[in-house]
Amino acid sequence: MATLCRPAVAVPDHVITREETLQLARELHAGHPQLDLVLRLIENTGVRTRHLVQPLGETLRHPGFEERNRVYEAEAKARVPRVVDRALAQAEVVPDDIDLIVYVSCTGFMMPSLTAYLINSMHFRPETRQLPIAQLGCAAGGAAINRAHDFCTAYPGSNVLIVSCEFCSLCYQPTDLAVGSLLSNGLFGDAVSAVVIRGEGGIGMNIERNSSHLVPDTEDWISYAVRETGFHFLLDKRVPGTMRMLAPAVHALVQHHEWDVTGLDFAIVHAGGPRILDDLSHYLGLAGEMFRFSRATLTERGNIASSVVFDALDRMFAEGTAVDTARGLVAGFGPGITAEIAVGRWHT
Amino acid sequence: MATLCRPAVAVPDHVITREETLQLARELHAGHPQLDLVLRLIENTGVRTRHLVQPLGETLRHPGFEERNRVYEAEAKARVPRVVDRALAQAEVVPDDIDLIVYVSCTGFMMPSLTAYLINSMHFRPETRQLPIAQLGCAAGGAAINRAHDFCTAYPGSNVLIVSCEFCSLCYQPTDLAVGSLLSNGLFGDAVSAVVIRGEGGIGMNIERNSSHLVPDTEDWISYAVRETGFHFLLDKRVPGTMRMLAPAVHALVQHHEWDVTGLDFAIVHAGGPRILDDLSHYLGLAGEMFRFSRATLTERGNIASSVVFDALDRMFAEGTAVDTARGLVAGFGPGITAEIAVGRWHT
Repeated sequence: MATLCRPAVAVPDHVITREETLQLARELHAGHPQLDLVLRLIENTGVRTRHLVQPLGETLRHPGFEERNRVYEAEAKARVPRVVDRALAQAEVVPDDIDLIVYVSCTGFMMPSLTAYLINSMHFRPETRQLPIAQLGCAAGGAAINRAHDFCTAYPGSNVLIVSCEFCSLCYQPTDLAVGSLLSNGLFGDAVSAVVIRGEGGIGMNIERNSSHLVPDTEDWISYAVRETGFHFLLDKRVPGTMRMLAPAVHALVQHHEWDVTGLDFAIVHAGGPRILDDLSHYLGLAGEMFRFSRATLTERGNIASSVVFDALDRMFAEGTAVDTARGLVAGFGPGITAEIAVGRWHT
Repeated sequence: MATLCRPAVAVPDHVITREETLQLARELHAGHPQLDLVLRLIENTGVRTRHLVQPLGETLRHPGFEERNRVYEAEAKARVPRVVDRALAQAEVVPDDIDLIVYVSCTGFMMPSLTAYLINSMHFRPETRQLPIAQLGCAAGGAAINRAHDFCTAYPGSNVLIVSCEFCSLCYQPTDLAVGSLLSNGLFGDAVSAVVIRGEGGIGMNIERNSSHLVPDTEDWISYAVRETGFHFLLDKRVPGTMRMLAPAVHALVQHHEWDVTGLDFAIVHAGGPRILDDLSHYLGLAGEMFRFSRATLTERGNIASSVVFDALDRMFAEGTAVDTARGLVAGFGPGITAEIAVGRWHT
């Protein structure tokens, strides 16, 4: 039985508020023909604060892809070990106990990936498997949980460390002026997180089954354009409506598990935006309150990509109201358009 | 039991010979203080021909990272489906039978990865899991086999499609003039490959156990520098000597499986260069002949990154001399420095 333990999450100290974001959009894009729409969309996200890995002035500069990636690497090396330490301690394991490290991040690129650095600097065993995933975007948090679950199913008793490192602000592209880009500039935030999936023991969510779903012919709805200036995030206006297409996949997994969606006690989902949470509530027939953890993440930190599910799960641990055997789901959504979904029971 | 079936491999039509490579190096780098060393190193690789995805003139130009990546995407979409079709046919499965697609490639970057395109265009099920890996370089062929083996162990009877797409020539950087770069310019080639790992049935290598090993503190021996001009491959001169450090990991896995290395009947390994094959032969106490498939790949196609192990395995199928229950290993080596190793028996 694979238990998703309490995640450790850290956000950088630099903060930008909604008011500052709106004011900045007004200043930078005065005269933009769709400025009013952009401001309305940003207000509608419900995001109140976001954390940035650099001061705002630095964030708005584009010093080039090489320098951006240099910052990514330096900040990842500075910030990730601390959340890893905390995640290990919370799961009551030590580096020697870890058999696989899944590293998910779509906001910087390193080869070798940070897994090699972590193994070397934090004294994981040289035999630790490395699974770096860079191309699943916001769905990668769910994918990491699911592949870790697969691994623990293959090797009972093994333990997996998941690390998510998302510095979305390092993908800010000042010259991208489409509505989707300007909305994204007001939506995404930075965070790092880590969590252990224990093959035996541990307190948290016992993952019992997982599934993946690709919405046909939506490859270009969420994508990166790769340019000299780095990764350019492209967001189609149809994305907020994708839960209508993904809710059936959630239903299918829950039914396959011989449960009923309306009988679920908790839901930890990727909060890409407010419509996603509203629509999930609608299409799954679940009270909006079920998504309070994801909504709090969105409000206080923005869309922190693959880290959203871990931040939301951490809030559920903090609330401390989940009872033993409570049934729930965790789901990541991202480019593809892909959903990575898992169901399981709370274990105290 | 996970069976690694016969791979399908394709190389582009444009060919560059060793003589052309040497002549080109003489012309482009006349006056380079270490030209003689570079020429000697290139001769020593034993590479006779390499295939390129573009004509030589185009290959030598650097039209920018965006254009390079556009070519990567277009060529991947044009070439990968055909090897996938062949790999499926050789394994006697259809797209509906596939539960996971592992896509490995370190020479271009797409988000979503090609997995989404393949699912959409080749009619895999929307539930097919996607595992794109971009950051394990030449070790990714071995890693893909090992993660597929894990998946089949977790879900007996499931089938995995592995796709490797390596257009190394799209990472050619005309301004990189270090000896390691000039050697790499004479070493790497382009190829695409695909293979199915069948959870039940199939002819090929039954994967029985796998392991991973990271050589401590060698992160910067093989790496990418990420720049405005794309990925810059950095190769340390200590890399050819790494088999001394990795051979013990091969021994450890074989012994853990209660076999003896000298009792192995076949070996399919990443042929990064000739020294790797010679040293493996030496440190494992195996006849050089054991590495004939990998050596043929190196000679005829150069180092085709994560595709080497699939090309070498295809040659073993073509030779047709492996007998039922023959014992062997497959191993990928790459950045980290990481080895991904598997052992198993031939099944006819």
